[in-house]
Amino acid sequence: MTYCLAIKVDEGLVFGSDTRTSAAVDDVRTYNKSHAFEFAGERAFVLLSAGNLATTQALVQRLHQDIDSAAPLNLRNARSAFAAAEYLGAASVEISRASAQLAQSSADFRVSLILGGQIAGQKPEIYLIYPEGNCISSSPETPFLQIGEVKYGKPILDRAIRPQLGLHDAARCALVSMDATFKSNLSVGPPLDLAFLPRDTLKITHLRLDLDTPFYHEAKEIWNQKQMEALRALPRFPWER
Amino acid sequence: MTYCLAIKVDEGLVFGSDTRTSAAVDDVRTYNKSHAFEFAGERAFVLLSAGNLATTQALVQRLHQDIDSAAPLNLRNARSAFAAAEYLGAASVEISRASAQLAQSSADFRVSLILGGQIAGQKPEIYLIYPEGNCISSSPETPFLQIGEVKYGKPILDRAIRPQLGLHDAARCALVSMDATFKSNLSVGPPLDLAFLPRDTLKITHLRLDLDTPFYHEAKEIWNQKQMEALRALPRFPWER
Repeated sequence: MTYCLAIKVDEGLVFGSDTRTSAAVDDVRTYNKSHAFEFAGERAFVLLSAGNLATTQALVQRLHQDIDSAAPLNLRNARSAFAAAEYLGAASVEISRASAQLAQSSADFRVSLILGGQIAGQKPEIYLIYPEGNCISSSPETPFLQIGEVKYGKPILDRAIRPQLGLHDAARCALVSMDATFKSNLSVGPPLDLAFLPRDTLKITHLRLDLDTPFYHEAKEIWNQKQMEALRALPRFPWER
Repeated sequence: MTYCLAIKVDEGLVFGSDTRTSAAVDDVRTYNKSHAFEFAGERAFVLLSAGNLATTQALVQRLHQDIDSAAPLNLRNARSAFAAAEYLGAASVEISRASAQLAQSSADFRVSLILGGQIAGQKPEIYLIYPEGNCISSSPETPFLQIGEVKYGKPILDRAIRPQLGLHDAARCALVSMDATFKSNLSVGPPLDLAFLPRDTLKITHLRLDLDTPFYHEAKEIWNQKQMEALRALPRFPWER
């Protein structure tokens, strides 16, 4: 399993992803699920993936090959983030279908993807690309997208994420959302990767946080303490007064 | 869908349940999913149910009939909470199996149950009874049980619930867990029912909270505000300093 999310606020985009992959409970590995495509001054994209790891790796290879060979449609020349998302969807369906045909198996070779980024002169955008190849963007009312094990980490996003929230507060919220999922689902695990794409910079900043990273450790402690304080700040029941 | 939970702390038991049932998105009704069985001075049980509503209602009827007819095994004479849970499991399997045979259908007539309570002279206990009829109790490490749509409301329970937590703080935590689920899953909805069984009282107190109940409204506002404060209290990223 996997948990990835992308948040779009007025100040830019934030991405979060875990690094645990498991073919079985006794076959657990650490893989980066966040892939950056940066073209200085032109455009910057972050791709997040959940699902079949072989399909993901084949897809990332394909994306780089298409860029290197200046294919008619690739991440560097797509006219819009939407066009890039559709290109990714078509490529992911093609690869997973080829794998299924080769294997003659009912195993699931599909992937769910999130693509976020900005093209110079355009607005930042995030897209969720379904295993079927089609895609949706975020909305002002729901300015975040999730793939994989999405439920545990959703309540804090529902409560906190608004377009007006600062980029770094949005990243703190992503951290909490990821950490809640780590606690509740063993198949999603640290270290976690955060990526920042501040609006109009076209420059991605990466941060990897592991359990022994002081920043992450401190954040967990403060969050747990503040949750207990918040609980105790809730109103008294009538008979407690 | 449904979301019910029971929490066992040193001071006693707390139960939470939503009231929304849906046969389809255009067939939504409000039903109490929390059923109390109180025998003053002897014992007190709370039953929570998720799953097929007809099976639940037939089960509750059966439980009352067995008590009224002083059946060899019923909720009033079961030797322990575990014996009561096993009795419930057997009855629920029998009823759902009979419904399936009558219908000759593959529809799911089964239910998941939580039974919590205390028998005079014994300790308070909570049990989760699976649709298959078997059951598990809580543990000191995980002193809560959930049925139905359990994921959205689990992170706050994982963070906050410990046996030492006060009964009313545990109830505030149940409220937050329920509210998180309301926000994220339309098939779980208010009003919500809380039930309190303080240790050694054998007396159940009920509280129904709806969106327009001032207590609930105030709790939601305070919680949202405290969550934003908690996010802002998390450490700065290196480049923010």
